[in-house]
Amino acid sequence: MAQKKDSWAAAGRALAERLDALGGVSDEAGGLTRTFLSPAMKEANALVGTWMKEAGLQVREDDVGNLIGRLEPTESRRVPARTLVLGSHLDTVRNAGRFDGALGVVLPIVALAELRRIGVALPFAVEVVGFSEEEGVRFSRPYFGSKGYAGRLTSPELAQRDADGISVREALEGRLGRRFAPNGAAIQRRGCLGYLEVHIEQGPVLEVKRLAVGTVTGIASQHRGSFDFTGQSGHAGTTPMELRRDALAGAAEFIVAVEEFAKTHAPLLATVGLVQVANAAGNVIAGQACVSLDVRHPTTSRCRQAVARLVALAKSIARRRGLHCEWKPTLEQRATVCSRAMKSLLSASVRHVQGRDCPLVSGAGHDAVVMADTTDVAMLFVRCRGGLSHHPDEYATAADLTVALRVIGEFIRRLAAREARAVQPRRRR
Amino acid sequence: MAQKKDSWAAAGRALAERLDALGGVSDEAGGLTRTFLSPAMKEANALVGTWMKEAGLQVREDDVGNLIGRLEPTESRRVPARTLVLGSHLDTVRNAGRFDGALGVVLPIVALAELRRIGVALPFAVEVVGFSEEEGVRFSRPYFGSKGYAGRLTSPELAQRDADGISVREALEGRLGRRFAPNGAAIQRRGCLGYLEVHIEQGPVLEVKRLAVGTVTGIASQHRGSFDFTGQSGHAGTTPMELRRDALAGAAEFIVAVEEFAKTHAPLLATVGLVQVANAAGNVIAGQACVSLDVRHPTTSRCRQAVARLVALAKSIARRRGLHCEWKPTLEQRATVCSRAMKSLLSASVRHVQGRDCPLVSGAGHDAVVMADTTDVAMLFVRCRGGLSHHPDEYATAADLTVALRVIGEFIRRLAAREARAVQPRRRR
Repeated sequence: MAQKKDSWAAAGRALAERLDALGGVSDEAGGLTRTFLSPAMKEANALVGTWMKEAGLQVREDDVGNLIGRLEPTESRRVPARTLVLGSHLDTVRNAGRFDGALGVVLPIVALAELRRIGVALPFAVEVVGFSEEEGVRFSRPYFGSKGYAGRLTSPELAQRDADGISVREALEGRLGRRFAPNGAAIQRRGCLGYLEVHIEQGPVLEVKRLAVGTVTGIASQHRGSFDFTGQSGHAGTTPMELRRDALAGAAEFIVAVEEFAKTHAPLLATVGLVQVANAAGNVIAGQACVSLDVRHPTTSRCRQAVARLVALAKSIARRRGLHCEWKPTLEQRATVCSRAMKSLLSASVRHVQGRDCPLVSGAGHDAVVMADTTDVAMLFVRCRGGLSHHPDEYATAADLTVALRVIGEFIRRLAAREARAVQPRRRR
Repeated sequence: MAQKKDSWAAAGRALAERLDALGGVSDEAGGLTRTFLSPAMKEANALVGTWMKEAGLQVREDDVGNLIGRLEPTESRRVPARTLVLGSHLDTVRNAGRFDGALGVVLPIVALAELRRIGVALPFAVEVVGFSEEEGVRFSRPYFGSKGYAGRLTSPELAQRDADGISVREALEGRLGRRFAPNGAAIQRRGCLGYLEVHIEQGPVLEVKRLAVGTVTGIASQHRGSFDFTGQSGHAGTTPMELRRDALAGAAEFIVAVEEFAKTHAPLLATVGLVQVANAAGNVIAGQACVSLDVRHPTTSRCRQAVARLVALAKSIARRRGLHCEWKPTLEQRATVCSRAMKSLLSASVRHVQGRDCPLVSGAGHDAVVMADTTDVAMLFVRCRGGLSHHPDEYATAADLTVALRVIGEFIRRLAAREARAVQPRRRR
C-alpha cells in the first residue's frame, strides 16, 4: 500500500510538471492563450499526443481538431467493446491559467499509464479526448470541440464568424483540405460507456471544506439577460427628491433585491455583474440604467421560476418608482444531471481515497453539458487556490492532483470490475 | 394699465426673438456651443452689444472678455453714483439650450429700454454684464468671467490649461496684446448697489407650482466626491452567495441608502449619478465598484454634516459586507445667501406682478456665487419646460419671459424709489 501511494504521488508530481509545460504553449507571448485551431492548439495537440503515445494510446485528430488517444480493452467479451471517454478541453480563455481544461486531458493519460504499470486489466476501450474548443473565445460561442466529437454541430454554428470574418466551416475546411461533414461523429450513443471529466472547481467551496476533490452532482441551469430601467434624466442640484424618476436608484434597489432573493432561495445563485448608466455624470440624475442578470440553479424549472420572480420584482420596483423596465433574455441553458450510476461509483472512489466526499453543483458550463446528450456523464472537481480561475494565478497543488489521480484510478478499476461482472452473467444465460 | 401690459408683452416677444437669434451664434454647426474667448463669443458680444447700444447703454469689453453695457443715472445726489449690476453669462455648455445664461443678459437690456421708454428715472447707474465664462467647458473650471469682473482671478486659475495646452493667461494676453493684470477689477464693493441675475430654473418646481417666476433665497452648498468599494471578484456560477464579497451589491445598497437619507432630510439633495465596475461582466461578481456622490443643501454646515453621515453610512455598509470603502472628496462649495433687502424687494415685485411668489433654493451654481463675495445678490428664476436645461430643447415661453420682464422692471422701479428715499433724508441731516 505504501508502495502504491508513493507511485501515485510521483505520478501527481509528473502531472503537475506536464501542466506547467503545456501552460507554456501559447498564441501570445507573456500569457497563456490558446484559441480554436490556432498555431498553439496545433502545438498543444502535438505535445499531449506524445504523452498519449508514451502511455500506450493510439493517437488521432478528428475533423474539428479534437485530439483523441484510444486504448483498446485488455480483455473484453463484448464485441464491439464499449468505450469510456475521459477528457476536457485544450483551448483557453485569454490570459488563462494552466489548469482549466488541460487538467482533465492530461490527468487521465497519467492515470492510465499508472494503471497499466500496476497491471489493471480493462474490459472496455478508453478514449482520452482533448477537445479543441470550449471557451467560446474565437467564435463567441462555446463547445465546438465536444459538439463536433458528438456529431451535433448545427448549420448556424458552422456559419458563425470570427473577428476576421472567417466562418467555422471555412476554418475547419481550410485545415482539412476537404469538405467538412458535421455528422461524422467520433462517438456514438450505443457504444459509449460514459464520459468522465476532471476539472478545477473554479470556486471556493472545496477550499472552505478543506477537501482536495469532490463529486459533481450536476451542472446548473443558467439563465442570463439584462434589464433596462428608464426614468427621467435631470439636474442633481435642481430636481427635488420627490419629483425624481432616478433610473440608477431603481436599478440599485433591484441589485440589492436580487442578492436578498438568492440568499433566501439556496442553492440559487443570482448575480448582477454589470451596470451601465446612459450619459452618466456625477451631477446628473440617471435617466437610463441597464443591469445584467445571471441566474443559476441545479434544477432547470427552479432556475426558470427564479428568473420569472426576479423579472416580476424588477417590474414592481420600476412601477412604484414611475420607471419603465424591460427584460431582455439572452441565454436559457437547462441543467445537466450527472448519471446516478457513474456519480455513485465516482463518489465511492472519492470516499475510498479521501475519507469523505463533498457533493458539488457546477455553476459553470463544461464539455460534460454537451456529452450528456450522448452518454452518461460524471465530473470530479479539484480544489483550486482561492477559488481563482480564468487567471494566470490559477493553481492546484501537486498533492491535490495526486488525490484526483488516485480517485480516477480507483474509479476506472471499480468500473472495470463492474463491467466484468455485468458481462459474465449475460454469457451464462 | 392695459396699455402698459401690452407694451411689456411686446417686449417679451422681442426678448424671445433676440434669444432665438443669439441661440444661432455658435462655434459648432448643428448645435449651440460657445466657449470662453471663442469666435462665437466674439460674435455674441458684438450682437448683444448692438442691442445694448439701441437701449442707450455705453458698451465696452473688459480684460477677460466680459461684455458690459453701462447706463449712467438719470439723476443722482450721490457722487459718485452707485451701480446696480444685472447679468449672467454668454458662454454655454456643448450642445446647449438658448436660455441658460443668455436670458439673464438680454432680459435686463430689454427691461431697461422699456423703462426708459415709459420714462422711469434712475438715481443709480446700471451695468448689464454678459460674463465671458461660467460653464467651465474650455478650462474645466467655471466662473472666469465673474471672477475677472470682480478682480478675483487667482494665479492657479490663470495657469489652468485647455485641451490644446493653452493657459488662461496665455489666452487672455493673446487677445489683449498685452500683459493681463488680474486685479484690474471692473467693479468695487464700495460702489456696488447689488447684483441681480435672472436665470431659467433648470428644475421642475415652478412648472409643478404653475408659476412663471420665483425668487431665489440662496444658492446651495455643494459637496462632491466618490466612493471606491472593494471586495473580491469571483465567478458568478461557482461562488456561493454566503462566500461573496460583492462590491456592486454593496454600492447598490449605498445608492438606495443615499436616496432614502435625502428623502428624510429635506431640503437635502443627494445623488449618485455614476457607477463604474472594474472589469465588469455579467457572469463575474464585481470586485470593485466606484460611485459618485453629489450632495446639496441651502446651509453649508448641514451639507457638510450630511456628507459626513453618508460617508459613515457607506463605511458601515462596507464593514458589514467585508468590503473596503474609501471616500475621495473632490468639491466643497459653501452656500450663497441672497441679500435679505434685495430678496424682499424682488419678492414684493414678484407678488405685485404674479400675485404670489415661490421661494426657491438654487441647487446649481451661478455667477451670483462669485458676485456674492463683492456685493449683495438676488436671483429670479423663470420656469422652463419640463425642468429641462443644458439641452437643445431647453425652453421658456414668451408669456413667462414677459412676466420676468415686468418683475425686473418693477424691481428696478422700487429700488429707484428706495434709493431716492434713502439719499434724501441723509441730505436733510
